[in-house]
Amino acid sequence: MPSFLPVLWKDQRLFILDQTLLPLEKIMVELDNAQAVWDAIKSLQVRGAPAIGVCAAYGMIVGIREQDPGDDSAFRAAAAKVKIFLATSRPTAVNLFYALDRMEACLNQCGESTPQQLFDLLEKEATAIFDEDVAMCRAIGAHGASLIDEGMGILTHCNAGGLATSGYGTALAPLYTAHEQGRRFRVYADETRPLLQGARLTAWELMESGIDVTLLCDNMAAMLLASGKVDIVIVGADRIAANGDTANKIGTYGVALLAKHHGIPFYVAAPASTFDAQTATGADIPIEERDADEVRCHGGKLLAPPQVKVYNPAFDVTPMELITGFITDQGILSGARE
Amino acid sequence: MPSFLPVLWKDQRLFILDQTLLPLEKIMVELDNAQAVWDAIKSLQVRGAPAIGVCAAYGMIVGIREQDPGDDSAFRAAAAKVKIFLATSRPTAVNLFYALDRMEACLNQCGESTPQQLFDLLEKEATAIFDEDVAMCRAIGAHGASLIDEGMGILTHCNAGGLATSGYGTALAPLYTAHEQGRRFRVYADETRPLLQGARLTAWELMESGIDVTLLCDNMAAMLLASGKVDIVIVGADRIAANGDTANKIGTYGVALLAKHHGIPFYVAAPASTFDAQTATGADIPIEERDADEVRCHGGKLLAPPQVKVYNPAFDVTPMELITGFITDQGILSGARE
Repeated sequence: MPSFLPVLWKDQRLFILDQTLLPLEKIMVELDNAQAVWDAIKSLQVRGAPAIGVCAAYGMIVGIREQDPGDDSAFRAAAAKVKIFLATSRPTAVNLFYALDRMEACLNQCGESTPQQLFDLLEKEATAIFDEDVAMCRAIGAHGASLIDEGMGILTHCNAGGLATSGYGTALAPLYTAHEQGRRFRVYADETRPLLQGARLTAWELMESGIDVTLLCDNMAAMLLASGKVDIVIVGADRIAANGDTANKIGTYGVALLAKHHGIPFYVAAPASTFDAQTATGADIPIEERDADEVRCHGGKLLAPPQVKVYNPAFDVTPMELITGFITDQGILSGARE
Repeated sequence: MPSFLPVLWKDQRLFILDQTLLPLEKIMVELDNAQAVWDAIKSLQVRGAPAIGVCAAYGMIVGIREQDPGDDSAFRAAAAKVKIFLATSRPTAVNLFYALDRMEACLNQCGESTPQQLFDLLEKEATAIFDEDVAMCRAIGAHGASLIDEGMGILTHCNAGGLATSGYGTALAPLYTAHEQGRRFRVYADETRPLLQGARLTAWELMESGIDVTLLCDNMAAMLLASGKVDIVIVGADRIAANGDTANKIGTYGVALLAKHHGIPFYVAAPASTFDAQTATGADIPIEERDADEVRCHGGKLLAPPQVKVYNPAFDVTPMELITGFITDQGILSGARE
């Protein structure tokens, strides 16, 4: 298993691995008030939908405790306040709302109690959210590990790893599980411009866990796939439409096309909850266009003409016909690629 | 035409546009001694095979003049010394040797003369090398411009532009010519990791010349091609094997595959001299693997684990069957793509 935890609840204190310092420093910081939790989510010190959800759930407890409520009604008032505040930290993060809603529902279902009883209740609920995330990742890992043979080469894109979840990841979970089962293999990590999640996070967490990893620029993937060094591609997913079209980090679609051309299986690993029955096809998934300076700058330095126009979509959509299969916590589902 | 000159010979003085300062500063620097010429080539202040050749040819004159030879034999001794010295600046640059050899041959073919006569002779030869490069680029531009229609979208990769030649470029020459002919179109420039020639150079020189250009990360090309915004892809070439397989900047092969999938024509623009009859196929072209820190670092800043293994090939090979055609100074040749 990975040798790090993105979110840690220990002795009723909340710690996170500060991901903005990776890959050069591995530092756990304590979040002991609501503002610190809000800042950590906002500034991407903690990132990845499941990890944000877990952090926010424990963050509720930290935020309520800070207000030192003397009785049941003060506790509930404090909880409502913290929930509203934390929900503004990343307004598009679905898992954030899901976790906060669960914490609130848990309180609502409980009759009048002492503050200590309510703290215990919320701690149990947050830990359940954490445990469910671990179980989801482990299930993906268990199903996906069957695809990873000794000596294989695996290409991945972006970071759908332990850092984004409660420790095992989605796209990387099959690798952690296969590694635990004693198999050795090589992972190739696309650096994933513009935000470099592959270089900063995927390369770091695999090295940290003793898995053989090689970093490449995104435009080197075609030659790598042609070289015969890669046997399977596994990526994560942000949203999967009802027809199987999959939105994921920009660049995923290109990798899927290149994998098909070279006859290399292309798998999407994600919890079954990522399938969105309300979205008919990939064409219905809105694509966020992000700030031009993400592309113009490298390492904080402007390396393109300051006024140059930029194309910077955050995600692309891989059509179902390019996907060999989906590795989910419920099992492996077939894609439409022949 | 482009509004800049990478190499300028004016009033018998040699100037170059310092490309290491682009895209933020546009500064011409004088090279008034052999060491300065050597440094400029070595440090990539001047880059691109044709531009290096022209710079070295004029650099011969600058280096001989520095030694102030008093008679014919002193002149020839000085020339021999400068030639050997400049040839060490970039040991794999074919145009560098070609230009220096031409300058030497020109001297060898001339009988005993005064230093002034020999200077005049060499200036004429260097200017001939420059003029031939301009004519070559213009011929590529004239042939290729026929492919560029009003309102088109054009994708290019790396920099095979005016900055790499005597001002018009190879892959960009058709665009400059079409623009001179009054047509308006949109160019998309891949940033071209790891060295960012697309962001630093292509985006800069097209903006500088008033051509509409949009910058993108390499991994966004697939989605861009799927969007319908691109009608043609034009790239340069480092070497073309006898069977048409083409070595060019890493990432070119991926773009060629994506272009084929989306039914978009893919052209290689290069002088006919880039075809190498001695190289049977792409498999015979050696691929340089470059330093790992080029991939680990961004803008001089380490953004990956310092010890992470890296895959960093400088070039890839696009097979003939992915190429629609070759835009050369001799005309447009058909590729093998159906």
